[in-house]
Amino acid sequence: MKPTAGELKATAQRLAPYVYKTPVLSSRWLNEMAGATVFFKCENFQRTGAFKMRGATHAILKLNDAQKAKGVATHSSGNFAQAVALAAKIFGIKARIVMPRNAPEVKKAAVLGYGAEITYCAPTLVARELTLEKIVAEFGCTPLHPYNDYDVIAGQGTTVMELLEELPDIEAIFCPVGGGGLISGAALAAHYFGHGISVVGAEPFGADDAWQSFCTGKRVSQLNPNTIADGLRTSPGDKTFPIIQQYVSEIIRVRESEIIGAMRLIWERMKIIVEPSAAVPYAALLREKERFSGKKIGMIISGGNVDLKKLPF
Amino acid sequence: MKPTAGELKATAQRLAPYVYKTPVLSSRWLNEMAGATVFFKCENFQRTGAFKMRGATHAILKLNDAQKAKGVATHSSGNFAQAVALAAKIFGIKARIVMPRNAPEVKKAAVLGYGAEITYCAPTLVARELTLEKIVAEFGCTPLHPYNDYDVIAGQGTTVMELLEELPDIEAIFCPVGGGGLISGAALAAHYFGHGISVVGAEPFGADDAWQSFCTGKRVSQLNPNTIADGLRTSPGDKTFPIIQQYVSEIIRVRESEIIGAMRLIWERMKIIVEPSAAVPYAALLREKERFSGKKIGMIISGGNVDLKKLPF
Repeated sequence: MKPTAGELKATAQRLAPYVYKTPVLSSRWLNEMAGATVFFKCENFQRTGAFKMRGATHAILKLNDAQKAKGVATHSSGNFAQAVALAAKIFGIKARIVMPRNAPEVKKAAVLGYGAEITYCAPTLVARELTLEKIVAEFGCTPLHPYNDYDVIAGQGTTVMELLEELPDIEAIFCPVGGGGLISGAALAAHYFGHGISVVGAEPFGADDAWQSFCTGKRVSQLNPNTIADGLRTSPGDKTFPIIQQYVSEIIRVRESEIIGAMRLIWERMKIIVEPSAAVPYAALLREKERFSGKKIGMIISGGNVDLKKLPF
Repeated sequence: MKPTAGELKATAQRLAPYVYKTPVLSSRWLNEMAGATVFFKCENFQRTGAFKMRGATHAILKLNDAQKAKGVATHSSGNFAQAVALAAKIFGIKARIVMPRNAPEVKKAAVLGYGAEITYCAPTLVARELTLEKIVAEFGCTPLHPYNDYDVIAGQGTTVMELLEELPDIEAIFCPVGGGGLISGAALAAHYFGHGISVVGAEPFGADDAWQSFCTGKRVSQLNPNTIADGLRTSPGDKTFPIIQQYVSEIIRVRESEIIGAMRLIWERMKIIVEPSAAVPYAALLREKERFSGKKIGMIISGGNVDLKKLPF
């Protein structure tokens, strides 16, 4: 069952000692560009540089002692790997991460730095899932899903709970959509604790599976994602999609050039480092700014992990 | 006469409606690297992306009506130009900025964007000063000095007043040294409102005029500055230097590789954009970390204006 309001509140309490309450920043320039008042909830300042730390920590917090003794495992080439590695380290449990051999060195190093064990595999989803299955079978550890998991969804939802605590009169929240863990948690939090807030998903044209699913009412998988927004190449799962269907108002798609342009504006004007996926919601607002003119908008900056040697500018 | 405690308090009140109270951020990673607890006062988030906005606004606020009617002028290829342009715009007065022809396009565009008038000149200090003199003679406008001016010094000092308000038990403050406007204001504020705080200057080896002056007690000018820290190529003036001599504890010099390394750490770990000059103080702390081990340190991040197309990584 999807998390209740009570469960979200309990999640926020459980997480408080382990995750940062991230700052909310704004910029006159970016307000003027958008014709709206925009509040950026900066999860790029979260531990491990992304909101994933919330969900990973919460999933590990909910394990029982027998599960903790055997550790956790996941497959990820990105932010979830680092989040699981650090969260496991915090609780002194073993983390086994399946990563594609071609994952960026900086991400491998971060995962190793948090003390997790990496198993490398071929860079395909099938190889990743098979390798994870083998590890789970061999060690009896608990597999953690990066988004299709109610404890993870509840964890990510605390981002919006914090935002609403600080700014209760937000009228709309823009949020990137990949596998849907962040936006489903955000939409539940907005529904339970907000006042008629519309939750707007933002997605690249090159990975618009959530938009297709949302429009047709049928969950579509992303076959060949083609976008710089590497966090948004995954597809909603059977737990996240129904929440999106019920609580998200709309999904706006943006072009790659719009993503890079928005990312650059945020870097240059706000002086913060955001990854391409995190710039997608602001790109979506710029694209549809006439419809949101004058509104008070929350913008979820999902993360800030980029390879400084491979910038798109 | 150098600003008094009362003058600094009055300055903070005057400036409050026009400048941001910038956030103070910290990072577990950067604390661990330094072996100290470091609080970064983020003037990269200040209006125009640098602390210069404080001094420029204050200098303009102190003009009388006759002076305001004739406008202001300055020469600068960097952050002071933008600050004067925006501050003048706020008060509806004319700003004339002398810029070297080879100044970065992005900086010219920013100055023009704030409505100031640019006069281009050859890229030498002599040409800049002569062009400014001509403009002042022709239009009767008031020349504003970027640092060797007590109103500017008092304005920059409000950075440290804000920091101490938030964190009264800071033990040392690290601050970059260029012309000395920031550090002399910072040192006065620490002296008046802190409790035995040592103020540490940080400077590149390639532009160590302040260090030389500090050591010899005689003001030395920088002849051929050679550093990526473009904000620190200038030399202390006859108003800033005596304050530095009296209230600054020491000046630490750092290599170019240390500046770039510190800048990269701040970008990657804190997810904020800082310009090379702003990374110099953290580089200085890393260089001398044994001496500051376990201390509570304020670190002035002076600005975040970089050309994203010309990064040193």
